[in-house]
Amino acid sequence: MKGTVGELGEFGLIRALTSRLTTTPAVRLGPGDDAAVVAAPDRRVVATTDVLIEGRHFRRDWSTAYDVGRKSAAQNLADVAAMGAVPTALLLGLVVPAELSATWPVELMDGLRDECQVAGAAVVGGDVVRGETITVAITALGDLRNREPVTRSGARPGDVVAVTGWLGWSAAGYAVLSRGFRSPRAFVEAHRRPEPPYHAGPAAAELGATAMTDVSDGLVADLGHIATASGVCIDVKSGDLDVPAQMTDIGQAVGVDPLQWVLTGGEDHAIVATFPQGTKLPARWRVIGRVDKAVGTPQVTVDGAPWDKAGGWDHFGGK
Amino acid sequence: MKGTVGELGEFGLIRALTSRLTTTPAVRLGPGDDAAVVAAPDRRVVATTDVLIEGRHFRRDWSTAYDVGRKSAAQNLADVAAMGAVPTALLLGLVVPAELSATWPVELMDGLRDECQVAGAAVVGGDVVRGETITVAITALGDLRNREPVTRSGARPGDVVAVTGWLGWSAAGYAVLSRGFRSPRAFVEAHRRPEPPYHAGPAAAELGATAMTDVSDGLVADLGHIATASGVCIDVKSGDLDVPAQMTDIGQAVGVDPLQWVLTGGEDHAIVATFPQGTKLPARWRVIGRVDKAVGTPQVTVDGAPWDKAGGWDHFGGK
Repeated sequence: MKGTVGELGEFGLIRALTSRLTTTPAVRLGPGDDAAVVAAPDRRVVATTDVLIEGRHFRRDWSTAYDVGRKSAAQNLADVAAMGAVPTALLLGLVVPAELSATWPVELMDGLRDECQVAGAAVVGGDVVRGETITVAITALGDLRNREPVTRSGARPGDVVAVTGWLGWSAAGYAVLSRGFRSPRAFVEAHRRPEPPYHAGPAAAELGATAMTDVSDGLVADLGHIATASGVCIDVKSGDLDVPAQMTDIGQAVGVDPLQWVLTGGEDHAIVATFPQGTKLPARWRVIGRVDKAVGTPQVTVDGAPWDKAGGWDHFGGK
Repeated sequence: MKGTVGELGEFGLIRALTSRLTTTPAVRLGPGDDAAVVAAPDRRVVATTDVLIEGRHFRRDWSTAYDVGRKSAAQNLADVAAMGAVPTALLLGLVVPAELSATWPVELMDGLRDECQVAGAAVVGGDVVRGETITVAITALGDLRNREPVTRSGARPGDVVAVTGWLGWSAAGYAVLSRGFRSPRAFVEAHRRPEPPYHAGPAAAELGATAMTDVSDGLVADLGHIATASGVCIDVKSGDLDVPAQMTDIGQAVGVDPLQWVLTGGEDHAIVATFPQGTKLPARWRVIGRVDKAVGTPQVTVDGAPWDKAGGWDHFGGK
């Protein structure tokens, strides 16, 4: 792709971007008209939106455009899956500087397309405008397949808490990158390109999950959202969390308790859910805690005590 | 609303914004979970997205936050209506500087909410992040009510071209504002807050419109999209366009042919459609031209000749 975004012009860029796309049977009308049309067989549509900004959510020296595409699609598609829905479609609002190489948005689109394919969805529309800061605004849609949405508010005392996917890998990768290293690759890759277990969301809904969310702010913070919405307390048993040996090694090298990454690291988009006790969970789910009655304020504890180290992520406070 | 966005924090701002919202029966699950759930009784959902940036699409000294909310909702809801669909829901991706007064996004949300109410829709979700430049990324959803979507590609030779809504008012208002004036108010208001004829989209679909779009880039440019997609030529009769006397007065005052605003001004979000000859159109539709076979390249002419003055809007070239 030669030239800059400005040289290509708005309509040239749109042509270049849409030429990269593939489709699915759910796409009744793709890009190029006033709006797209997507199948919603359930008669309800699940919809979520997220915005990523250069310098805040990604860095061009750490992540390729393709990786940013994979990651920004992943975090939205994971939100759809965490409702128990099957992702169907994605829309892109893109802000790019005129002097940016046109290769960047084209590779971003390739990343969006490929992550959509992993989840069974397709990019169906978008908008590109000129601006100073690269900004990627994604909306993802999904279908509930005749199941009720699994919200954050259905956890009941006695439920077990279980998780599937990766926890703390992206945070460990970030720690590595921010100290100027490029390895271990597995963690750096996990930071650049999360792999949410999309199928696990609808599967958990089918198994009777009472509450569910994806881990985007960190396990303790996201379980906190479930605790608050459900009016319960949740206790996590740290011994039941998977802390890989290599993560422990990185922790020692950089002076961080790796449990901190597992409990508070976001962006891996693992899926955490609560299930009635006795639910037979598939092999890749790991029971990590239980739901109790709220005594006072709903909260999350780790091994019976509040987790008092810094955690979660406030996009304005940045704590 | 006291304090800045940064002082309020991400979750405080989200609480302040969602507290402003109203709902509709189509909203099955509103803000506060991983995703929203919206009714899609047609089993298909119409979806469109647009991004507005401060300094490029709006100016804070010309438009209040409330007006920006109305306008950014309007341009997306109009895209839904122009497919022949009834708008149902809107999602907001918002970038705001930490030092911005929290009043600004709250009033923006009021504007989004009120414009949604005009169209019969509701704000169902969103994301707020910190960044240097205020950026408003909107996604709108709609329901087709068992009618096929009206695309840009169905215009046939012999069809009539008809329009409803306002044309050139926003452009005339922009001309007034950019010369430092604040009146005539009607045009300035039209620039700040368009009034798309939402109901006319589904009504046109019901009447058998063969092609349809909203006028966001300018009448000639948007009819050009229909001509290209349909493989036809379109001729507009300038004498059949409504050029209000007051617009002529402004044109004389600033040295612009007001027909230029009517033919090339965007952002009023009028709805223009093609209909089979003999279609009985409701009173507020105005027949302004006809569809002919394409001789050579599909194109739009005005009174039989290409409109050669500057027109349309390329977001990168800015012509």
